[in-house]
Amino acid sequence: MTAYPLLDTIRHPAQLRALDRKQLPQLAEELRNFLVDSVSRTGGHLSSNLGTVELTIALHYVFNTPEDRLVWDVGHQTYAHKVLTGRREGMARLRMYGGVSGFPKRSESEFDAFGVGHSSTSISAALGMAIAARLKGEERHTIAVIGDGAMSAGQAFEALNNAGIANVDMLVVLNDNDMSISRPVGALNKYLARILSGNAFNAARRAGEKVLSVSPSLLEFANRVEGHVKGLLTPGTLFEELGFNYIGPIDGHDLDSLIPTLQNLQKLKGRQFLHVLTRKGQGYKLAESDPILYHGVSRFQPEVGIVDNAAEAKPSFARIFGDWLCDMAAADSRLVAITPAMCEGSGMTAFADRYPERFYDVGIAEQHAVTFAAGLACEGLKPVVAIYSTFLQRGYDQLLHDVALQNLPVVFAIDRGGLVGADGPTHHGAFDLSYLTCIPNMVIMTPSDENECRRMLTTAYRQDAPCAVRYPRGAGTGAPIDQSLGELPLGKGLIRRKGHKFALLAFGSVLASALTAAETLDATVADMRFVKPIDQALIIELAREHSLLVSIEENALIGGAGAEVARTLENAECAVRFFRLGLPDRFIEHGDQAQLLADAGLDADGIIRTVNAHFQPSQ
Amino acid sequence: MTAYPLLDTIRHPAQLRALDRKQLPQLAEELRNFLVDSVSRTGGHLSSNLGTVELTIALHYVFNTPEDRLVWDVGHQTYAHKVLTGRREGMARLRMYGGVSGFPKRSESEFDAFGVGHSSTSISAALGMAIAARLKGEERHTIAVIGDGAMSAGQAFEALNNAGIANVDMLVVLNDNDMSISRPVGALNKYLARILSGNAFNAARRAGEKVLSVSPSLLEFANRVEGHVKGLLTPGTLFEELGFNYIGPIDGHDLDSLIPTLQNLQKLKGRQFLHVLTRKGQGYKLAESDPILYHGVSRFQPEVGIVDNAAEAKPSFARIFGDWLCDMAAADSRLVAITPAMCEGSGMTAFADRYPERFYDVGIAEQHAVTFAAGLACEGLKPVVAIYSTFLQRGYDQLLHDVALQNLPVVFAIDRGGLVGADGPTHHGAFDLSYLTCIPNMVIMTPSDENECRRMLTTAYRQDAPCAVRYPRGAGTGAPIDQSLGELPLGKGLIRRKGHKFALLAFGSVLASALTAAETLDATVADMRFVKPIDQALIIELAREHSLLVSIEENALIGGAGAEVARTLENAECAVRFFRLGLPDRFIEHGDQAQLLADAGLDADGIIRTVNAHFQPSQ
Repeated sequence: MTAYPLLDTIRHPAQLRALDRKQLPQLAEELRNFLVDSVSRTGGHLSSNLGTVELTIALHYVFNTPEDRLVWDVGHQTYAHKVLTGRREGMARLRMYGGVSGFPKRSESEFDAFGVGHSSTSISAALGMAIAARLKGEERHTIAVIGDGAMSAGQAFEALNNAGIANVDMLVVLNDNDMSISRPVGALNKYLARILSGNAFNAARRAGEKVLSVSPSLLEFANRVEGHVKGLLTPGTLFEELGFNYIGPIDGHDLDSLIPTLQNLQKLKGRQFLHVLTRKGQGYKLAESDPILYHGVSRFQPEVGIVDNAAEAKPSFARIFGDWLCDMAAADSRLVAITPAMCEGSGMTAFADRYPERFYDVGIAEQHAVTFAAGLACEGLKPVVAIYSTFLQRGYDQLLHDVALQNLPVVFAIDRGGLVGADGPTHHGAFDLSYLTCIPNMVIMTPSDENECRRMLTTAYRQDAPCAVRYPRGAGTGAPIDQSLGELPLGKGLIRRKGHKFALLAFGSVLASALTAAETLDATVADMRFVKPIDQALIIELAREHSLLVSIEENALIGGAGAEVARTLENAECAVRFFRLGLPDRFIEHGDQAQLLADAGLDADGIIRTVNAHFQPSQ
Repeated sequence: MTAYPLLDTIRHPAQLRALDRKQLPQLAEELRNFLVDSVSRTGGHLSSNLGTVELTIALHYVFNTPEDRLVWDVGHQTYAHKVLTGRREGMARLRMYGGVSGFPKRSESEFDAFGVGHSSTSISAALGMAIAARLKGEERHTIAVIGDGAMSAGQAFEALNNAGIANVDMLVVLNDNDMSISRPVGALNKYLARILSGNAFNAARRAGEKVLSVSPSLLEFANRVEGHVKGLLTPGTLFEELGFNYIGPIDGHDLDSLIPTLQNLQKLKGRQFLHVLTRKGQGYKLAESDPILYHGVSRFQPEVGIVDNAAEAKPSFARIFGDWLCDMAAADSRLVAITPAMCEGSGMTAFADRYPERFYDVGIAEQHAVTFAAGLACEGLKPVVAIYSTFLQRGYDQLLHDVALQNLPVVFAIDRGGLVGADGPTHHGAFDLSYLTCIPNMVIMTPSDENECRRMLTTAYRQDAPCAVRYPRGAGTGAPIDQSLGELPLGKGLIRRKGHKFALLAFGSVLASALTAAETLDATVADMRFVKPIDQALIIELAREHSLLVSIEENALIGGAGAEVARTLENAECAVRFFRLGLPDRFIEHGDQAQLLADAGLDADGIIRTVNAHFQPSQ
């Protein structure tokens, strides 16, 4: 006996569409059970996926995917979508090396209309697809599904604003679960909450059914009625003002609301906006009561839930940062900390509790986060922006102009520098050293262990210039922590092992592997610490005393720390042979961090191989 | 007899504040006359500055600058502000080498609370300053002045959204002139137009006076009245929904509206939003009737106006791009062109006229522009994104993930690569080669003349991968144009001159200087053409045949084309001496392009000096 009799029959959405509507609640239940079971075995995102089971079924039931384009925002809520589009077996290797991605991916399935990972791109991409359909004279539907947290990012507004005047047929589904990873913050969120409260909501909650009884032409007529009058009758004025026909809010777990509403929206031309209410973790009690804990999970037993692993041996870098933040805030009242919606992931929960007046979660709004910090710094405060490497790409122009050009003392605590593992290419911090080193005035540090990280954060904090401390995802080496707030000498590296012939110049997290490799190679190892200003004296000294220099970093080979070593050698006219190790010039897929590092030749074996390949005994 | 009797008495806003209100219209007239006269002698931005004369006077009259913080968005509308804050004499050397900047600049004046250049940062920065004031217990006002075009960018929405729930006193002034550089496009703009039309506007146009007769506490009470009811009575619901108290629209050229309204707003706590209507070019008939022509001007005679210089000897690269765009669109119906609000500057006017269905001006929305292009490319269309180098910094994450990671064939026509001259550090395209080369899948080309540019655009268009063609601001070399749509071999450079000992590897615009220098040096010169994939075979060949290689590029020394030459030499284990020339590791100020290039050692003399310094005859 299978636990999933109905789900077992669905290997393509066409089979789903052949079902009777009455069968769909059972399918939803089976799918939900399957997801809890599957994610409990593999780890992955849970809460968001339990929240979109009915919405996913309804979308594939009503629309003719993949011919109709379904663009998921962020994409970590697409497990139900993956299961219904032929990837159910693949879920057993979800987010594992060579397995199914945790996000939509065009190369994985024709049903993944657009690859995602970062938030708030769906409306832009869907608008492009919808306009392409019009230009090509193709009749198809284009649907963007975006969460309320993602809606707070500027790009979503840019896209709504631009779509609002386009001659285009598209549907934006707002999946309003009142929570991104951290709780969303901002006026838009408050606005959505107002929609759901009081009479407006009560009057409108049967909007889906009302649509049923109104023919499309009548509905279009109704839309032409004076906007402000409509604002009195239904919520959603803000989206109406931006040029969309707002429908909702409707219950996103009620297939009897979702399906007829979508079927009617399908018949409407122009820009439609459907507001759907869902609950993260829906149907799994433990996740419902703590959706943040169950946002991203490791393996767990479904009947027991997540067990707090208090005996974690080594603290994560995020934890080290969070502790430092509290300690420095205690020592200096000027400290203000900023996160773009990553309070928990960045290790800031304790700080947010202790210093609520100095904690600013600005929502998914990296551009604003960086300029906001610049504004604080102008007034003599000491802003610390905690941000993942990959998300800082969203605030690049603001970092360049608003912080670096004005030489303002903002500390960037860059987490998830290097390979992050299971989240894959959209989340690897593979480029930060490349895109940061070219920025004048920047100081850039790469800690090799937790204690160095702490001291670098203090060093950064005490500079009168923009500084970045870039540390990896996950646990450190277990190095003992000096609880004082001590600094490091600016721009100075450190020789960690004296050897012969070869010198390994390690930047950050790769130091441990370099030290291991050095035992075999009898190599000198330098903990370079600073990418900028780089320790030129140390490099020249190492060049004089060795036959081969190898720089090692967990960053793109192109334009990273190694490029700065090369430039130092050029400027000093050192004739030493030099080779650099780093991430190859391709996007790195998801998988186990250690495996990915080994593939890139950045583990101890890889380092040994490279040195041996580049140094023949005869030379 | 001075032409500016009142203006002559103002060297500090305190003197302005000591004037009687009745004197201000005269001051406005003198100031406007001064600006027309001054800009006609120096060149610079004109239309926007004529539009903000009264608003600037009113803000400095009412608020206690510089103690109160005045944050101008974009900043090219701040000439009146500069004149009133002690920089009137400096205006004679506006935007010239060593002279007054065309934008606010913290290092130039204490009245420039925040340096700008790119749009839509003002609300973020002002929010940071306002929160800093609160945290420090300082009583001061913080004002952001933002145009309607800048309001369409995502960052402005992020900031409004974040400010809308902040416990903070700040004023956002929307300077609504219905035009950024190109005409703004989007639902927000349509929304603002609706506010100004019909009964709503007529009922509300005396809002400023109404504020006068209402005490602050009454006004605050009124704000607590049900929002939707208020939506019927006054416009601005959208900003009210985002948590601001909306006042307006008022006439931004009427000091009798502006000053009392600002005086009343000054007394209000919380988040205030003032909607001001201005006209670009106000008071100078020629600019009023063609504000786009008078947006940025060269020297002209005020009584004659701008004379069309039809006899322009050499076409600009923007013109070359525009012509190519039309020719390629005629040849291939899949071509779609996208600009983030830079239709005229990017040379797209003819294309927009001829192919309106395939032309998308998305407004100041670089993030959206890039992802929108990715969406089009997913459907088999061939998007060409025309963007200035410095603005692409705003779409970096989208370029990385939405285009490059998915390996979508989007052409980036990157204008203003290298130093732009008078606009200065916020507009120099100094970093693109650095931030682009690290991106996997990218093809990057640097044309050295107009014809090469045209062929590179065709080459890019025919690749099945993301491609960038990066060309400089201004005119080319006058190279004859091959009107066919011919390609160049991918990844191949070209030896342009055979010499001895030295090889100059020129990337793009610096080729002409390299060729000149080579005559003195008897150097070999290569037109490298491709930064990525770089011509490794050519580099190795040059290394074998020469004693010294010098790469030359108009991009940051760190991580640019020279870094890729260095990496090629490393990988090939070439022992040749190598040195790179490029922009030094500091922000380059504004000034004459040729002067700035000479300062950076990128003219022919600089190249000769560098080579001689690095090569002693004895070696």
